[in-house]
Amino acid sequence: MSNDTKHPGTLDAVAQIPTSRRAFLRTASLSAVGAGALVACSKGSVAVAQKAAAVAAPPGGHETATVAQAGAPVVNRRAAADAMDAMHEKGIKAFPAKTAGKGNQPLAPKMAGGVKVFELTAREIQWEVAPGQMVKAMAYNGQVPGPQIRVQEGDRVRMVVHNELDQSTAVHFHGLELPNEQDGVPFITQPPIKPGESYIYEFTVPVGNAGSHMYHSHHNAAAQVGMGLLGAFIVEPNRPRAIEKVDHDYLMVLNDGAHGYTLNGKGFPATEPLTARLGEKIRIRFMNEGMMIHPMHLHGMHMTVIDKDGWAQPQPWKCDTLNIAPGERWDVIVNCNNPGTWAFHCHILPHAESEHGMFGMVTALVVAK
Amino acid sequence: MSNDTKHPGTLDAVAQIPTSRRAFLRTASLSAVGAGALVACSKGSVAVAQKAAAVAAPPGGHETATVAQAGAPVVNRRAAADAMDAMHEKGIKAFPAKTAGKGNQPLAPKMAGGVKVFELTAREIQWEVAPGQMVKAMAYNGQVPGPQIRVQEGDRVRMVVHNELDQSTAVHFHGLELPNEQDGVPFITQPPIKPGESYIYEFTVPVGNAGSHMYHSHHNAAAQVGMGLLGAFIVEPNRPRAIEKVDHDYLMVLNDGAHGYTLNGKGFPATEPLTARLGEKIRIRFMNEGMMIHPMHLHGMHMTVIDKDGWAQPQPWKCDTLNIAPGERWDVIVNCNNPGTWAFHCHILPHAESEHGMFGMVTALVVAK
Amino acid sequence: MSNDTKHPGTLDAVAQIPTSRRAFLRTASLSAVGAGALVACSKGSVAVAQKAAAVAAPPGGHETATVAQAGAPVVNRRAAADAMDAMHEKGIKAFPAKTAGKGNQPLAPKMAGGVKVFELTAREIQWEVAPGQMVKAMAYNGQVPGPQIRVQEGDRVRMVVHNELDQSTAVHFHGLELPNEQDGVPFITQPPIKPGESYIYEFTVPVGNAGSHMYHSHHNAAAQVGMGLLGAFIVEPNRPRAIEKVDHDYLMVLNDGAHGYTLNGKGFPATEPLTARLGEKIRIRFMNEGMMIHPMHLHGMHMTVIDKDGWAQPQPWKCDTLNIAPGERWDVIVNCNNPGTWAFHCHILPHAESEHGMFGMVTALVVAK
Repeated sequence: MSNDTKHPGTLDAVAQIPTSRRAFLRTASLSAVGAGALVACSKGSVAVAQKAAAVAAPPGGHETATVAQAGAPVVNRRAAADAMDAMHEKGIKAFPAKTAGKGNQPLAPKMAGGVKVFELTAREIQWEVAPGQMVKAMAYNGQVPGPQIRVQEGDRVRMVVHNELDQSTAVHFHGLELPNEQDGVPFITQPPIKPGESYIYEFTVPVGNAGSHMYHSHHNAAAQVGMGLLGAFIVEPNRPRAIEKVDHDYLMVLNDGAHGYTLNGKGFPATEPLTARLGEKIRIRFMNEGMMIHPMHLHGMHMTVIDKDGWAQPQPWKCDTLNIAPGERWDVIVNCNNPGTWAFHCHILPHAESEHGMFGMVTALVVAK
Repeated sequence: MSNDTKHPGTLDAVAQIPTSRRAFLRTASLSAVGAGALVACSKGSVAVAQKAAAVAAPPGGHETATVAQAGAPVVNRRAAADAMDAMHEKGIKAFPAKTAGKGNQPLAPKMAGGVKVFELTAREIQWEVAPGQMVKAMAYNGQVPGPQIRVQEGDRVRMVVHNELDQSTAVHFHGLELPNEQDGVPFITQPPIKPGESYIYEFTVPVGNAGSHMYHSHHNAAAQVGMGLLGAFIVEPNRPRAIEKVDHDYLMVLNDGAHGYTLNGKGFPATEPLTARLGEKIRIRFMNEGMMIHPMHLHGMHMTVIDKDGWAQPQPWKCDTLNIAPGERWDVIVNCNNPGTWAFHCHILPHAESEHGMFGMVTALVVAK
Repeated sequence: MSNDTKHPGTLDAVAQIPTSRRAFLRTASLSAVGAGALVACSKGSVAVAQKAAAVAAPPGGHETATVAQAGAPVVNRRAAADAMDAMHEKGIKAFPAKTAGKGNQPLAPKMAGGVKVFELTAREIQWEVAPGQMVKAMAYNGQVPGPQIRVQEGDRVRMVVHNELDQSTAVHFHGLELPNEQDGVPFITQPPIKPGESYIYEFTVPVGNAGSHMYHSHHNAAAQVGMGLLGAFIVEPNRPRAIEKVDHDYLMVLNDGAHGYTLNGKGFPATEPLTARLGEKIRIRFMNEGMMIHPMHLHGMHMTVIDKDGWAQPQPWKCDTLNIAPGERWDVIVNCNNPGTWAFHCHILPHAESEHGMFGMVTALVVAK
């Protein structure tokens, strides 16, 4: 039913590592149907199976598998289980699935007399959130999340915003400590940007305000942000700390609005895996643009939390499950010292799995040997 | 449609600062209707507009606004956008809106032989949660939140509670480490206080138990606290830390029960702004009396977190969005070094904004020059 | 209506302390029915009542209880209040209520050539979640939570898993940094364990990976974990820190799935109290296996947070309400220096109390003199 060679471009191809997963696929045929069968794990499977036999009927132990003995319709049960498993397998084999559109793409500024100029056009689009699943979105430059803005402390920045939506909008630079008139809140700091209009924000990024920030709509925002008007605004520090020197700098924008549960605008299996080579150090910038908390759980390795909302924590601290609330940003470092393909998902399980398989807020960290 | 002079006592009056907001209101007429119009920000608007023109048609840039070109019914779209914007503007112009009743009022104790005596009467009332929106409430002394109790470490305190509700009640002093019989849990530490009865709590506030605590019903509490039987119980330390010496000490009680999403018992635009002069330092004591988390986001300046549940954090840490869970108290310091009117709201956006404008858990920090 | 002697084995019996609660039960008859009656607290009740009388009609004070004066049907109101109170009292008097089945039971390993072998059998059972309330569960070894696994850093461990469910399953060791093929994610690191099959995990617990971890299903997990396929996996450190040396080591597994709001698989009043003698130090290992946050609030004493997900926090910090998100583990220390029976509950009040009384995520910490 499953066959690695049928899925070019999927997880295995990404990993390009002869992992134990392939091994188990080759040995999966060892799995016998019926009560009491032992499926050995990949390494030293025979030896392990022997040991297992030694404990399968321990003195005074509990009864062993009795499905068949109980006279139950084993074949039907097994068929139902197989059908469920096939749905799960299909999703995982499809990962990472191709979809049209990709968010978070770096946006190179145009330079205008020492000012970094970025243009954003807000427009309604169709967005493929998961394979074949088209949703109505509001997007900056056709992307969900919008293009990634990356500047330096002290930079002079101009954001030119064009509103091609049917409703007014405005852009708030969440986390940046700007002059009030650049804050993007209609009727408090500016008029709304009407449909068909453009608006210019211009400011100097304060020195001392480095870190993982966001930009998003601050007008009819429950709807507009839920529909996709959001993006990452990264401010590089002038003097990076030693702990910030990483091999890969990843972004994970969480959302749970009109598009379902998404990571960087896509639901599993269309989410993109994070990849690293064994021994590399990665940074992950979590940003929650949704309405719910999402405790993100990484398998196999812990995360070292360094920043909250762009501000250094007094001391780094470790966890494997990090609770990220709406509006928060948390930056973590992972030392990729454990090879393999590691599940990485929201631990509110209904955000990640149904009886039809994984979906939504699921991706993987692939550590290649 | 809007006119500053029509709204005495509203946000501008509170701020009493010639902010850029007024400036933009004066310049808002510069905003032209139609595709491609540029609305310049308040300062140096001409220069900025020229720069904008320079990037409006960049080589290889994306297409500019095409609403009019697409043959769409621009006028209808614009009218719909204007109608939505008018609702948003109306709410903001009304802020801070007057309503009957004010919670959190300091309650001066009566002294009785060295004992600070506070009286609380629980009674059902009508409460104006937002302009014209009357709700049934259960309140201490007619206030939601109940009157603010403020004592000192080591104080002897007597709380005389009168129950004029139709149901029994009891008062728990959340965060105080009291003798068990003063803990306020019916059938564990006391009998319920029946309708028409009174009850006396008396205790010495432990030295070492300073900070932001709460008092609230602990009987049928999901209903009674949701309806308003709650208040702040602040214990002043005998030896304040340097970081606690502030110019203003604010309280922000969050709730999300029968009265909708409220800050200090009111929904926007009836919430009260926090005010400070430029350079002042304020403390904000967040207290969540609701059933949901509320990640409070301050624009324009960060918050330095000093205390959790009245206990000093090992080291202060910074953020702009602070996730506050039910029952938690978090104390933060804000150095008001950025002038202007800053939105301050729950970042679960449906708790703060709908397509009809801002509501619920929204207020502002106004930093006057 | 209530009578201590009618409830052998309940809270009082557990506490075995002549607490103020008994005292109040003895003095409860002092409580008079009607407006303005004063119910004195247990100690020095006469003196307190006298003082209270002194403040009951203060000069300029608010009006005193007027229920009777208002001509309201006092008797009917009181009857309604009494009926509600009786339901509350009944629940508390029943605590801790006996139910069939107990989760978290330590599972002694069988030794096989230096390997600690644990066997888990997943099977559908009926589970008594609260007195008389039977629910369908999926359980390891007939327990919810499954049996407690406790090993040492560096141990070689074999987990033999038998699947007697009607659907496939797999076991993930949440928090353990294992070789990828032991990670328990079907179609990524292993095939699913089909109904009637068994599967063996075997690994060395990494040194440096001590702490409060979990094992649970990682297949159709929103359903399977919600139904009970979960348990604690504790790794003892080779070199315990001084702060870890405690008199009692408690576990509190939170869940909110198909069985309602539970602590260690039971809803109040079937939850088990934590007990300690005055002056003892206890550790509580919170683990959230549910879909919602649960801010756990301890009355009367604070908690000192030492670990997150098994990793030491940089410095311990104090709180009385600890927000625990799905997938998280938090370890706290409580110095039991305040005698009495202390409510201990989720502060999302609808998870703990209704107008029919306490239920769900409620227990008590009983500190005996």
